[in-house]
Amino acid sequence: MRAAVCLVSGGLDSATSLAVARRDGFDCYVLSFDYGQRHRIELESAARLAANLGAVKHLIVPFDLRAFGGSALTADIDVPKSGPEAGIPVTYVPARNTIFLSFALAWAEVLSSFDIFIGVNAIDYSGYPDCRPEFIAAFEKMANLATKAGVEGQTKVTIHTPLIRFSKSEIIKLGAELGVDFRLTHSCYDPDERGRACGLCDSCRLRLKGFADAGLRDPLEYRQ
Amino acid sequence: MRAAVCLVSGGLDSATSLAVARRDGFDCYVLSFDYGQRHRIELESAARLAANLGAVKHLIVPFDLRAFGGSALTADIDVPKSGPEAGIPVTYVPARNTIFLSFALAWAEVLSSFDIFIGVNAIDYSGYPDCRPEFIAAFEKMANLATKAGVEGQTKVTIHTPLIRFSKSEIIKLGAELGVDFRLTHSCYDPDERGRACGLCDSCRLRLKGFADAGLRDPLEYRQ
Repeated sequence: MRAAVCLVSGGLDSATSLAVARRDGFDCYVLSFDYGQRHRIELESAARLAANLGAVKHLIVPFDLRAFGGSALTADIDVPKSGPEAGIPVTYVPARNTIFLSFALAWAEVLSSFDIFIGVNAIDYSGYPDCRPEFIAAFEKMANLATKAGVEGQTKVTIHTPLIRFSKSEIIKLGAELGVDFRLTHSCYDPDERGRACGLCDSCRLRLKGFADAGLRDPLEYRQ
Repeated sequence: MRAAVCLVSGGLDSATSLAVARRDGFDCYVLSFDYGQRHRIELESAARLAANLGAVKHLIVPFDLRAFGGSALTADIDVPKSGPEAGIPVTYVPARNTIFLSFALAWAEVLSSFDIFIGVNAIDYSGYPDCRPEFIAAFEKMANLATKAGVEGQTKVTIHTPLIRFSKSEIIKLGAELGVDFRLTHSCYDPDERGRACGLCDSCRLRLKGFADAGLRDPLEYRQ
């Protein structure tokens, strides 16, 4: 069995990406981050998903992006609730996927793994620059120069993005096929103390529309 | 004044790189990392250097790379003392510069800065893959796709590596010219409790040879 490092936030995209890695026969080392996000409760989902989908190990790495701020998820800026607008939304966290993939690269190198899974998608997404295929391709190229692989000419690092060309409803259908338990996932940017989703932020809207388009029922409880 | 994010470990290379950024007229936001390194005492040097060289702000971001291990600096592996050997040494920390630059990119984007300084050099170095010019070029390309700059066609992110083609003695001479106080720097991978350098690890050896070649006296206290 080959080892892969799988980034799992606790949302349904990363859960489905993890399920794909398992289907493809990887031993999965699941990595999550406690980065000071407003919706920190997603980490409980990440832990339950890692266990449920048979991860070998789950690590949560803490660091605090509130030290920089600059996003509605890491600073005192309201999460928009009136639907998607043009441009990059204030929920964008500067360089977040670059940081996440960098830690994944570090763990992969220590594990002698050359496979990293990330659940980004560039179709039904929020317009974040670091979800685009051209970013992933550039990261992969850089990763192969950053590590021993690039110097010693070993196996190349691959950044797997199994969902990058999928619509949200396609992701949900695939996740359902692969046995992802969507009750364990969390998508909302602005949950209440009990973890209930708001139903109004961009992430909730994309999720609800995805379930509707897939003809499936979202098992989560929404507070409105 | 333009703002730059300057990575400063506390060593003499990054101190000189910061001095170059100041000479070139940048307002410097200094970034250091408490990553579980054996020579954590270098952070005291980083703080003193930031103050001494007129940084606008100094942030130390903590995260623990001991969670992954895999290096003599972050795991229970002895630091070699018998001089450089062929290949990538055990003091290499997987993906460390990728992680450091990713955080620098995040802070730069929040500050609306497009300039990042890092004191890597590819001449008198320890053979780490992430100190090579081809890695830096690939990171810069990736950085411009990872952030708003790449989407909105703003100013491009530049990763400045003013020392990349310098020998250690050239770095020391330049640092001396620019007024770097080398008493404030720390290079040793394996200092004692009082912070005294070992004089035998690769980092101490490169430093001592650099001072000798430059015809200057290293003001640090060595324990042997």
